[in-house]
Amino acid sequence: MTDSSRKPVRFALAQIDTCVGDLDGNADKVLSYVRRAADSADVVIFPEMTLTGYPIEDLAFRATFRKAAWEAADGLAKTLAQEGHGDLYVVVGTVGTDHASDNPRNRLVALHNGVVWAGYDKHFLPNYGVFDEFRIFSPGEKTLVLEIEGARIGVAICEDIWQDGGPVAQLASQHIDVLLTINGSPYEEGKTSTRLDLCVKRAREVAAPVIYLNQVGGQDDLVFDGASFVVNQSGTILERSAQFREDLSFWTLPVTSDPQTTDGSVSTLAPLMERTEEVYEACVLGLKDYITKNGFTGVVLGLSGGIDSALVAAMAADAVGGGNVWGISMPSRYSSDGSKDDAAQLAENIGAHYTVEPIENLFTAYQDQLHLQAVAAENLQARLRGVIVMAYSNSKGLLALATGNKSELACGYSTIYGDAVGGYAPIKDLLKTRVWDLAKWRNAKAAKEGNPEVIPLNSIVKPPSAELRPGQKDSDSLPDYALLDQVLAAYIEHAHGRADLLADGFDPQTVDTVMRLVDKAEWKRRQYPLGPKVTALAFGRDRRLPVTSRFSE
Amino acid sequence: MTDSSRKPVRFALAQIDTCVGDLDGNADKVLSYVRRAADSADVVIFPEMTLTGYPIEDLAFRATFRKAAWEAADGLAKTLAQEGHGDLYVVVGTVGTDHASDNPRNRLVALHNGVVWAGYDKHFLPNYGVFDEFRIFSPGEKTLVLEIEGARIGVAICEDIWQDGGPVAQLASQHIDVLLTINGSPYEEGKTSTRLDLCVKRAREVAAPVIYLNQVGGQDDLVFDGASFVVNQSGTILERSAQFREDLSFWTLPVTSDPQTTDGSVSTLAPLMERTEEVYEACVLGLKDYITKNGFTGVVLGLSGGIDSALVAAMAADAVGGGNVWGISMPSRYSSDGSKDDAAQLAENIGAHYTVEPIENLFTAYQDQLHLQAVAAENLQARLRGVIVMAYSNSKGLLALATGNKSELACGYSTIYGDAVGGYAPIKDLLKTRVWDLAKWRNAKAAKEGNPEVIPLNSIVKPPSAELRPGQKDSDSLPDYALLDQVLAAYIEHAHGRADLLADGFDPQTVDTVMRLVDKAEWKRRQYPLGPKVTALAFGRDRRLPVTSRFSE
Repeated sequence: MTDSSRKPVRFALAQIDTCVGDLDGNADKVLSYVRRAADSADVVIFPEMTLTGYPIEDLAFRATFRKAAWEAADGLAKTLAQEGHGDLYVVVGTVGTDHASDNPRNRLVALHNGVVWAGYDKHFLPNYGVFDEFRIFSPGEKTLVLEIEGARIGVAICEDIWQDGGPVAQLASQHIDVLLTINGSPYEEGKTSTRLDLCVKRAREVAAPVIYLNQVGGQDDLVFDGASFVVNQSGTILERSAQFREDLSFWTLPVTSDPQTTDGSVSTLAPLMERTEEVYEACVLGLKDYITKNGFTGVVLGLSGGIDSALVAAMAADAVGGGNVWGISMPSRYSSDGSKDDAAQLAENIGAHYTVEPIENLFTAYQDQLHLQAVAAENLQARLRGVIVMAYSNSKGLLALATGNKSELACGYSTIYGDAVGGYAPIKDLLKTRVWDLAKWRNAKAAKEGNPEVIPLNSIVKPPSAELRPGQKDSDSLPDYALLDQVLAAYIEHAHGRADLLADGFDPQTVDTVMRLVDKAEWKRRQYPLGPKVTALAFGRDRRLPVTSRFSE
Repeated sequence: MTDSSRKPVRFALAQIDTCVGDLDGNADKVLSYVRRAADSADVVIFPEMTLTGYPIEDLAFRATFRKAAWEAADGLAKTLAQEGHGDLYVVVGTVGTDHASDNPRNRLVALHNGVVWAGYDKHFLPNYGVFDEFRIFSPGEKTLVLEIEGARIGVAICEDIWQDGGPVAQLASQHIDVLLTINGSPYEEGKTSTRLDLCVKRAREVAAPVIYLNQVGGQDDLVFDGASFVVNQSGTILERSAQFREDLSFWTLPVTSDPQTTDGSVSTLAPLMERTEEVYEACVLGLKDYITKNGFTGVVLGLSGGIDSALVAAMAADAVGGGNVWGISMPSRYSSDGSKDDAAQLAENIGAHYTVEPIENLFTAYQDQLHLQAVAAENLQARLRGVIVMAYSNSKGLLALATGNKSELACGYSTIYGDAVGGYAPIKDLLKTRVWDLAKWRNAKAAKEGNPEVIPLNSIVKPPSAELRPGQKDSDSLPDYALLDQVLAAYIEHAHGRADLLADGFDPQTVDTVMRLVDKAEWKRRQYPLGPKVTALAFGRDRRLPVTSRFSE
């Protein structure tokens, strides 16, 4: 099909990293990307809720916030026109207000000729997993087709394409030339191919290519991976943006929309990372954005010589540079020489500040007074260390990092107010076996770049131990991680109950132990720092279970 | 209107305290209440989600949980019949499954003659404030009218009566003789009269009396106050159950439903508490149920001599008896003699265990090593105390209580991992001015009962101080509480932005200070223990704001 009244439409995909609540900063960033794109584009597209950042949660209810968002959109339209970009169509996301109900809306607006030229409100409001949109928004009812240069551009916002029916089904009969969806789609392992499959399905449904524009960056417990793309009905990827960083790329909608004729429109195809690299980069970006968006310049953490703190330190160095990382070794009478050496070596490898703060005198002072035994004495050591980490955090203005992994968090195998202190927990959604994978991957990457190992080999190969009593090993208290992590994945990510877990082939004793540990530790998890979700189901708002519960099946 | 085919129907209102996930325990409690009611009732009514407890949150997604809930309902029906109660109609709430979609449902079932005789699924699923029901349940579509002894009993579940339209509007044309609603309605100040007004409106809509049956008890951050009632179209209260405790009361639906003729059906009217007493009892019940349902036998907390810890200790003694309360005085060089005396006096007044654990040696040991200054040194003292409280908790198996109030929590005027440690925080939803009200009310109650004061007068009248440096007063860092609490109520409970607060008449400097403090402290609140919601908007799941946010208006 060739439509002689149409011209090719040049799209710029501005995959940016916004900050929630920073209306001025986000508008400025939109402006700078429009300037960069102006000569090569007719339409510049930004992610879901560009101006407000995403997700805004209950900020949606604050009338002053919605008013300021409106003013940001209106002011941006005027500034674009004043700068001579009024002929462009700039598509941004923002919060709107439904005038009938006064309810907040998740809105897409097109800015053109100095005004907010058109608007569309998200129909499907996700309210599962980490999402609470039905709580804060009322759903849109209308579809929107932008007519630009004779082309008909149907629009959607994120969840609109994940549900059957609704606006996409309506657009299917409206003869659109391209479907544009703007998204705030959080990363999780495996999601890249799910999104692509979905968009191919929608491309076929509307008989037109789909532009999938995603945001990038970290926001509290979510990481947006970008990885925007354009795909046609045949499943050919016509453009792909980078993962885990801002990007500006271009794609032209040809005059013919015949899928067999790409009309020179295949643009840059950023390479896709492999799974382990993706997860590592997700953690690093989540951490980096938490640090910078919250105004920190550096981080502090305890370095035990173990794999968890080593991996977190390596991620922190990759996020903000080793010179902004403070590592503290806090040996006790139970710390092995090997552990102390491994901690020092790690700090040296990443170029971190390194201090040794023994806890022996502090432990003695407490024990002279309290005479604690067994687990209470073990927890005491962890808490004395927590006090030191927070002292560094308070006196140097550093963000404290908690180094617990998902297996630990699941089983409560950590000391609340001890090793659990911190403002951010970069690996809280990584099972222990995944922690090993990522550490090995990071070293392999260093080797590939001709650099020495980052994480001391000894930290990777030695049997895990909290070193809170002589000869202690994690395996004294927990099933082997290879087994434990399988049970945890089934119980947590797949919500398998006891009967399901037995049907999965796990032995009753392991199942009962793991379920009991996980259920008992919910109160600790509630008080654990935020950290990036990288799996299909993370602890936190993704999995909302009561603390008080007697169900054990 | 007199219907000759009808007989009077005797209702038993079983206002019980259930436990989430305790299917067997809840079913046993239903059984025991049915036995008590059997001779005097035709219909025995229990609260929303009786068998499962409420709210079940994401437990709804676990297939084994829904299966067990079905078995509990089915087993209960059989047991009732075996015990000779098959002729009774027993109305309980539970979780169901929609067979078409396999989605969980919030269900009411009537047990009769040994079977699950009838069912109704909640239509309106609240998804605001503390509620996440749209997340976990799919909505019901049908109405249900139970025909019992010739009477037509329309049913609804909680939110169904809070929204216009829906099942109540449909029942209005179905000639019902009474509207029965079963509820899990959390307490907040002022809600008692709101519920009554609502039910009178619904009674007029359906032209029949309304039975409002609420659950009672604490579940994590929610307190259910009970206070069930029956009201007719004229607004006459025909029955009212007790507040904040289990109750079994009776009301008979007369053969005539003429509102002028109550037909001897006015039953017991439990007295209503006044507001301050309500709030105090809500905190005590929330604490008591958290302790007992989580298997603790006692609590431990730091006693500073200040009003907050004194009030929490008094509540704990009222909840579980002073003999199950461990109070620790942890004086530093900055603690006044008055404070130490007040702490000791409080412990004596409530019959608590009392220990003195000075922190001077611990502080010296740390400072010899770390040499902290200013706020870092102040936080250190609070954290050394947190370690002691947790050491008592771990070694004696006690629940640690955090004693922070809502004003402190709002402004971040507390030390995370210091005074903020604990599994439960009984007064976290009380503004400081309300803390004083409750302390005075508790002493007045003691006086009325001829007992000496519970909370030392000095703790009530002295200027609040954290005593972390010489001569420190809260008013050095915060506006006066009388003003602060007004700004906080407007900013937090009414979501007023900066412009609104200025329009409210607050001065710009106070507004900017308070907003900045509140916004900056979000990360600390995320890690704060659970505590009972008693206001219209509590911190926690009731108010979901991003940690990372730059909006300041």
